[in-house]
Amino acid sequence: MTTPKIGFIGLGRMGRPMASNLQRNGFATLSYDVNPQGIAALVALGGRAAGSIAEVARESDIVFTMLPAHPEVRAVVLDGIVPHARPGTLVVDMSTIDPLATDEVAAAVEAAGLGFVDAPVGRLATHADRGECLFMVGASPENFERVKPMLEAMGTTIHHCGPAGAGIRMKVVNNYLAIAACQLNAETLTLAARFGLDVERTIDILNGTTANNGHLKTNFPVKVLAGDIEPGFQIDLAHKDLGLALTSASSMKVPLAMGAAARECLQLARSRGFGGKDFSALLDAWCDLAGVEAPRLPSKT
Amino acid sequence: MTTPKIGFIGLGRMGRPMASNLQRNGFATLSYDVNPQGIAALVALGGRAAGSIAEVARESDIVFTMLPAHPEVRAVVLDGIVPHARPGTLVVDMSTIDPLATDEVAAAVEAAGLGFVDAPVGRLATHADRGECLFMVGASPENFERVKPMLEAMGTTIHHCGPAGAGIRMKVVNNYLAIAACQLNAETLTLAARFGLDVERTIDILNGTTANNGHLKTNFPVKVLAGDIEPGFQIDLAHKDLGLALTSASSMKVPLAMGAAARECLQLARSRGFGGKDFSALLDAWCDLAGVEAPRLPSKT
Amino acid sequence: MTTPKIGFIGLGRMGRPMASNLQRNGFATLSYDVNPQGIAALVALGGRAAGSIAEVARESDIVFTMLPAHPEVRAVVLDGIVPHARPGTLVVDMSTIDPLATDEVAAAVEAAGLGFVDAPVGRLATHADRGECLFMVGASPENFERVKPMLEAMGTTIHHCGPAGAGIRMKVVNNYLAIAACQLNAETLTLAARFGLDVERTIDILNGTTANNGHLKTNFPVKVLAGDIEPGFQIDLAHKDLGLALTSASSMKVPLAMGAAARECLQLARSRGFGGKDFSALLDAWCDLAGVEAPRLPSKT
Amino acid sequence: MTTPKIGFIGLGRMGRPMASNLQRNGFATLSYDVNPQGIAALVALGGRAAGSIAEVARESDIVFTMLPAHPEVRAVVLDGIVPHARPGTLVVDMSTIDPLATDEVAAAVEAAGLGFVDAPVGRLATHADRGECLFMVGASPENFERVKPMLEAMGTTIHHCGPAGAGIRMKVVNNYLAIAACQLNAETLTLAARFGLDVERTIDILNGTTANNGHLKTNFPVKVLAGDIEPGFQIDLAHKDLGLALTSASSMKVPLAMGAAARECLQLARSRGFGGKDFSALLDAWCDLAGVEAPRLPSKT
Repeated sequence: MTTPKIGFIGLGRMGRPMASNLQRNGFATLSYDVNPQGIAALVALGGRAAGSIAEVARESDIVFTMLPAHPEVRAVVLDGIVPHARPGTLVVDMSTIDPLATDEVAAAVEAAGLGFVDAPVGRLATHADRGECLFMVGASPENFERVKPMLEAMGTTIHHCGPAGAGIRMKVVNNYLAIAACQLNAETLTLAARFGLDVERTIDILNGTTANNGHLKTNFPVKVLAGDIEPGFQIDLAHKDLGLALTSASSMKVPLAMGAAARECLQLARSRGFGGKDFSALLDAWCDLAGVEAPRLPSKT
Repeated sequence: MTTPKIGFIGLGRMGRPMASNLQRNGFATLSYDVNPQGIAALVALGGRAAGSIAEVARESDIVFTMLPAHPEVRAVVLDGIVPHARPGTLVVDMSTIDPLATDEVAAAVEAAGLGFVDAPVGRLATHADRGECLFMVGASPENFERVKPMLEAMGTTIHHCGPAGAGIRMKVVNNYLAIAACQLNAETLTLAARFGLDVERTIDILNGTTANNGHLKTNFPVKVLAGDIEPGFQIDLAHKDLGLALTSASSMKVPLAMGAAARECLQLARSRGFGGKDFSALLDAWCDLAGVEAPRLPSKT
Repeated sequence: MTTPKIGFIGLGRMGRPMASNLQRNGFATLSYDVNPQGIAALVALGGRAAGSIAEVARESDIVFTMLPAHPEVRAVVLDGIVPHARPGTLVVDMSTIDPLATDEVAAAVEAAGLGFVDAPVGRLATHADRGECLFMVGASPENFERVKPMLEAMGTTIHHCGPAGAGIRMKVVNNYLAIAACQLNAETLTLAARFGLDVERTIDILNGTTANNGHLKTNFPVKVLAGDIEPGFQIDLAHKDLGLALTSASSMKVPLAMGAAARECLQLARSRGFGGKDFSALLDAWCDLAGVEAPRLPSKT
Repeated sequence: MTTPKIGFIGLGRMGRPMASNLQRNGFATLSYDVNPQGIAALVALGGRAAGSIAEVARESDIVFTMLPAHPEVRAVVLDGIVPHARPGTLVVDMSTIDPLATDEVAAAVEAAGLGFVDAPVGRLATHADRGECLFMVGASPENFERVKPMLEAMGTTIHHCGPAGAGIRMKVVNNYLAIAACQLNAETLTLAARFGLDVERTIDILNGTTANNGHLKTNFPVKVLAGDIEPGFQIDLAHKDLGLALTSASSMKVPLAMGAAARECLQLARSRGFGGKDFSALLDAWCDLAGVEAPRLPSKT
């Protein structure tokens, strides 16, 4: 099997070290960016510079794109790559964009007889520098195998999340939790500070309870996701405790925006008959409200 | 040193096994409950039954209370114990109530020449059964030493959180995070399910990223709490990613109440100049908004 | 019919002018307050000072209370009035407190053979000064007739809202809308200002559309409350427009906390099948979520 | 002055009656839609059918567009009209789209030597049928005069909101308030229904107080917008009353998502020192948080 010819479009703060790691790990790379500085860095490592997106498209077996937002992805892939690529070329978009834009681009790419993979990147630019990216990949099994060696040249953790479109969806889900949880922790430590609690001791304690131990690690898998929603810790009690936090924060002028939203969600769960169930059943209540079938883990038997 | 005489008031689903564990571990217990059934269980283990709260108060060196809410705590402690206890008696309230009610009760207890400790219980009734409670204790150092052996008879993890009132505050903070995080995880998995992502794979991935790894374990201690708010992952980017989640959820009719609240909080952080900072700086932004000094960990040098 | 003997307890910023207006309008008043200054003002108008709550209770046919919060109402009514009042005495609480506390007090009052009316006050202290209070009254028809002349001595608008407890509930509902709407208008004008729109022109326009014309005046009575939820203006379109506001506010760093919450509520309505209905059907959607029967106006035929 | 030649693109549920009203009122219209049915209706009224957008552009002095969303507006105006229109042609977009998209389109139109007006439509399709549209217009004074006769052929209320871009911004602001207020009223009546209050009486009362009388009509102009933020009704008291509503709703399992968000906003206002000010000062607090200069009405002297 011959090494595929690699194209790379988008050499910004993330793309440049990623393309560099491809080149360093033996994948000869033809690269392009609107900014010539980015290309120069790749050429210094032995890569080749393309004069246009069309040139990259014509001469590559696999084209990686790493771009800021969906207008750039649409422009580069639909106007630049699709009209010039040979049949069977694989387009691998690693940008973080709206999943619906990914679907639109994927459909156009596949309609033109090319293959599509979405492989957005977890972690930070400093990880990209060290070749330690995490990829969440949406691809057919064949395309996943085809692209895997290059992803391994750029990263250390490669998750195959499902068919095309599943990678960007996983990224959106992951970042939703990561970012909202960050604000929630900020509110929590603000309340602790206002209460005069020592921050080191607070963190130490929260790290030892359900608070910061990850519902997805401990409670959910053995309760709601295993089909058991008997308490445990009742939603009615959780609702009362959240009320205590909001009332005492209120008397100390500490705003708790996320907790206030959460209490009304628990309220919705209670109006819908989940008050006596385990608090992990908030998942079932929310799925019910959203008209989504509540997920369950496969039984272990 | 002689063994202190122990009183226990409130023998419900939590109190009964806790008092039983005291009795089993060598602390002779005089107990009372409005419901005689609870007392009978203790007597069966060799404990003594009191005919009234006043009797418990008169004959105990340390009185534990485990009651449903602040009206009961006020009634039992202020009307029942304070008028009848000997000077130097220690009142240990293990109920989960509003911290301001704890302060009021503590002040009245101390004004009467008695000692006060708040020691609310983390974990569940099944832990209480097995003597595996977690206690968050607010007490002077002397009172903490005095009550520690009994707490160890009922639990496995004893946190001394600060002076009287600090225990209940820590509990409120802990439960705030635990419960709101539960709803946030419910929203996250609902979105994942609606996206058609496999739940087992989703959990596996989220457990390996910041999403569910605990900001308090990983990012906060080395960034904002160490005084470093340079990104890392910028609040402006986090705001954009949260927008992607809300937009795509929106197009699929999945409500994300907590994420919507979170985005406006990030917005507030951005209006206040934190957009270019690391997302752990949401703590500094929220403290700034709440008029609270942002906490920092002691430097390690 | 002889003029009833009037008692009045609670002579603060609201109570003092209200009691003064009773006295001025021919109702001889026996009044009490913990603060003797308040009483002196009444005496100057020809009123009589009581030495205790018990004295007021013993000597009055109707006792008005105007107190800061429910602990004071409970203490004054349950401990002070109930034990000393003659059978048939009417207790009229005009304080703004938790409706459940009102129910508790009303039950105790009625169990003691006395009558109870709740008559919380709308409007401000300056209205009280001028005898222009608005009262929302919860009372049996007989008690309402009995207390009406005195309410008319203190105010200009008297609403009989239903049986005991209905007055305080109406007040809570009224203030909920008034206060939350105030914040919503604040967000709206902040966005307009950030957009560079002239505030005078903005207000002029908003006052001419549904925006500020009162859904309860115009749209609700002819649509959802008349049982017609066909659009009109679809919830799906409203959801899209709210999204435009949030997106453009977001790009200008204007937080819209209430709009963000609203969008997720519209989302819930859409998940539950109301997307194609008139936006007044948000009422039906919310009632459905809360497990409450959706209200309808009586048909006009 | 000769009558200008009118072009019209977009003959959907809104566009068709609007173009028809132009034609009926003496403005000969050359129209185009992707759907030939729409054009046929216009031809039946004596209008002319164009075979393409380019034809409309070449032959019109003023081109109106009424399209579903910004991708269509961008495609029609930037790709279809701009390359073919004669210098001085006026493009009038009546679609409701993201203001930033309007700005982008306006800039491209003006750069090509054409004029741009945004004139989104308030009110409903039934109003369009009757020629009773409300327009919020962003235009230079000259362009406003030029387009005004045609707007008057389609509508009854024409607001000149400022320069190009101001019309769509006013529409976004207007719909933000109208829609979020609708959900707020839905929550309010749900709570009233759960409280057992009669809906007709409730509406009657709310329509007579600040609750539904429009803060922008009554309180704001004489208080915060006149530079007077002394109470009146204090934010601290409003915060307490909102707490009563949330607590009692909570005990009856009625979710109040917007009120919960509002309370945290009042909390932010309190943390920032506005607790003792009039509740209309929520505007100043929110402007302060958003980094926007608080608007004031011109003084009347």
